[in-house]
Amino acid sequence: MTPPTSRALIFDVFGTLVDWRTGIARAVRAALGPGIDAEGFADAWRAEYDPAMATVRAGGRRYVALEVLHRENLARILPRFGQQLDDAAAARLTDAWERLPPWAEVPAALSRLRATHLIAPCSNGSIALMVRLARHAGLPWDCILGAEIARDYKPNPAVYRAACAALRLPPAAVTMVAAHNADLAAARACGLRTAFFPRPTEHGPGQASDLVPDGPWDYVARDLADLADQITG
Amino acid sequence: MTPPTSRALIFDVFGTLVDWRTGIARAVRAALGPGIDAEGFADAWRAEYDPAMATVRAGGRRYVALEVLHRENLARILPRFGQQLDDAAAARLTDAWERLPPWAEVPAALSRLRATHLIAPCSNGSIALMVRLARHAGLPWDCILGAEIARDYKPNPAVYRAACAALRLPPAAVTMVAAHNADLAAARACGLRTAFFPRPTEHGPGQASDLVPDGPWDYVARDLADLADQITG
Repeated sequence: MTPPTSRALIFDVFGTLVDWRTGIARAVRAALGPGIDAEGFADAWRAEYDPAMATVRAGGRRYVALEVLHRENLARILPRFGQQLDDAAAARLTDAWERLPPWAEVPAALSRLRATHLIAPCSNGSIALMVRLARHAGLPWDCILGAEIARDYKPNPAVYRAACAALRLPPAAVTMVAAHNADLAAARACGLRTAFFPRPTEHGPGQASDLVPDGPWDYVARDLADLADQITG
Repeated sequence: MTPPTSRALIFDVFGTLVDWRTGIARAVRAALGPGIDAEGFADAWRAEYDPAMATVRAGGRRYVALEVLHRENLARILPRFGQQLDDAAAARLTDAWERLPPWAEVPAALSRLRATHLIAPCSNGSIALMVRLARHAGLPWDCILGAEIARDYKPNPAVYRAACAALRLPPAAVTMVAAHNADLAAARACGLRTAFFPRPTEHGPGQASDLVPDGPWDYVARDLADLADQITG
């Protein structure tokens, strides 16, 4: 049998493994009261995510951890919703990104995949964020890869390459798993294998993106449990 | 109760958690035959470890992963023992550093400590080496810290500081655990807490070093199980 250390599965986390919209909306309601449009707030907060990383990706700002960007973005969103929070409360709300619920099948499916592969997140979240989220959501990682070890953000190729290098595996022995086609396209361009399944309610009931695979991915599954069925037979 | 993510235990690995001398001697015997002085070979190989890292620590060589140094050091040792190995066999023998046996109490004690603390190696081994060794020896890490994320080698302060920064914890919330007084002295100088227990046969029956604590360590224990008793009550 192929030893589990000779190949790896690396994972997108926000959206793919955990339900950030439900988790953030719940925390927003707890912090700001039941009158808030909590899902709208979560969407607005998340919408600031990519532009904030873009500056780092383009070299206009030195790498800073995602929690720093989350906190800055929160400060930008609050007035739009007519809200304010003191520093301690804003920090507590930002920590909600470390306490997101996993999609239901994820912990058990990851444990199954761990029997045949090294498994690690390849997320834009920092090591500190990912270890806390792993504890909260029950994600049994071998190690934490992703943006922090590359000091760059996905989908820049440095992040996928740094993950393979840290595992001492050729890209062809590493499969990127994501519910986002763009993430997989970037990984594939670096020579990694790819696995897709949709998360059709990641962005709520009206989601229009990433409902179907749009590239020649090596695996297409219904969810992570189905992917584990396909991979581990 | 204090959440387990608000404090961490970080660990020296070679000697402290795994018995490198027994593991390497066994692999040397398998690779080179029963006639070899396998324990002497293991000692000689290990003796090259610190001088090889010293060049990196002093800035005379860019960071390279420990497995590269192990392989170079093997090439240096083999002729001294009148031996030669082809590249593939030398690579296989070098991989023995990823298949070392844990000291008996380690896996269960780590699992106990994990209930109250984040746990991670802070070793000079690379991420690739540490994930494979963790799988082999049953070490349930939250993440892999140490030399590679700092791109420097212990006992340089950058390694301890990078571990605390990656966990987003102040040094006073992080305890360095080691069977080596010098490692603890370096960690303490960076503001970390410290825990010592001896491994009196790490270097074989004649060991003279690190038999007793020689600094004001926060914890002194008999072994990791005793430390877990002291810490988790």
